[in-house]
Amino acid sequence: MGEAVPTRLAQQIQFVIEIDQLKGILRQTLLTDRSRRENSAEHSWHIALMAVLLAEYAPADVDVLRVVKMLLVHDLVEIDAGDTFCYDAQHNQSKADREQQAADRLFGLLPPDQAQELRSWWDEFEAQATPDAQFAAALDRLQPMLNNVQTAGGTWKQHQITKAQVLQRAAPIAIGAPALGDFIQHLIDHSVAQGYLRP
Amino acid sequence: MGEAVPTRLAQQIQFVIEIDQLKGILRQTLLTDRSRRENSAEHSWHIALMAVLLAEYAPADVDVLRVVKMLLVHDLVEIDAGDTFCYDAQHNQSKADREQQAADRLFGLLPPDQAQELRSWWDEFEAQATPDAQFAAALDRLQPMLNNVQTAGGTWKQHQITKAQVLQRAAPIAIGAPALGDFIQHLIDHSVAQGYLRP
Repeated sequence: MGEAVPTRLAQQIQFVIEIDQLKGILRQTLLTDRSRRENSAEHSWHIALMAVLLAEYAPADVDVLRVVKMLLVHDLVEIDAGDTFCYDAQHNQSKADREQQAADRLFGLLPPDQAQELRSWWDEFEAQATPDAQFAAALDRLQPMLNNVQTAGGTWKQHQITKAQVLQRAAPIAIGAPALGDFIQHLIDHSVAQGYLRP
Repeated sequence: MGEAVPTRLAQQIQFVIEIDQLKGILRQTLLTDRSRRENSAEHSWHIALMAVLLAEYAPADVDVLRVVKMLLVHDLVEIDAGDTFCYDAQHNQSKADREQQAADRLFGLLPPDQAQELRSWWDEFEAQATPDAQFAAALDRLQPMLNNVQTAGGTWKQHQITKAQVLQRAAPIAIGAPALGDFIQHLIDHSVAQGYLRP
């Protein structure tokens, strides 16, 4: 950007430009109108807004701003590492290494203090050891379930996913947002009854 | 959703499902890889994260969480009203009415307290009378400028936009984020010099 722009701002703007690529990372989930697969940028918007809307179902010690920050950055590593389908066991083995390298490069574009700060949010989300990270993960799991129900099974039918697989995948919801536990159970039972999920 | 789900949660979930449609609203802006036009959901993600990253350029009294909330909801009315290209004078005349009707319907899906709260954020963004709304608008204007520069003129070239038009469009940036004023001036001068913008 030349000498006209201070280094710190130039680094921040370079990062802002770089992360545009998240809009090109496709997930398995279909949009509710079934027109195409969802990308990770719009998914991140959806669950960040869900964190605001559903904050009342979070445990009392959850800080919504921290959850929103985590959700806005939680998928950025996919720009380099790609999205890994959650039911693809083989590909999931190499996921951690690929994503660590991606985090090094991407967050490393920022000024050091912000590189460290964003990395810490992502590390916290990955570690799943704090109430904020656990509530964030609950929303990350809930949104594709809603889209799968809304598309009459969507990805579940396509990959012949079973109730047991979804129960396992949904387990973090009951941990991060216990108040949504009954709803999730209802959603899964409904999906089996409708034939969206294999029993 | 049936009797199994409390009314309040059912309304919130219905809203969460409804807003999925923002992913299908196309803006004029191109993605930086020029593969397609940007949609309003991924745009909202981008500028919400920019609010977090560029918070240090906001006036001291700006509340980042409120700005992020405003940015996450600021385009929702487009689900009914569509995206109106900022340089389309004729279509902009009917924009206010269409968007008010959209806000009534969409926010009205939520429980009354949240309908009022989200509507108040959107009204505040539209009114542009508070530092939070002005900083939010600054980011909303900055992001497409970056994408236009990154795509060697993108939408500007396509519509033969002039420097004077962009200066006017960018004016809210100097209001909402005065610390970015020099950078914007540099970006516009650079774009004219490169032939991305008509002088």
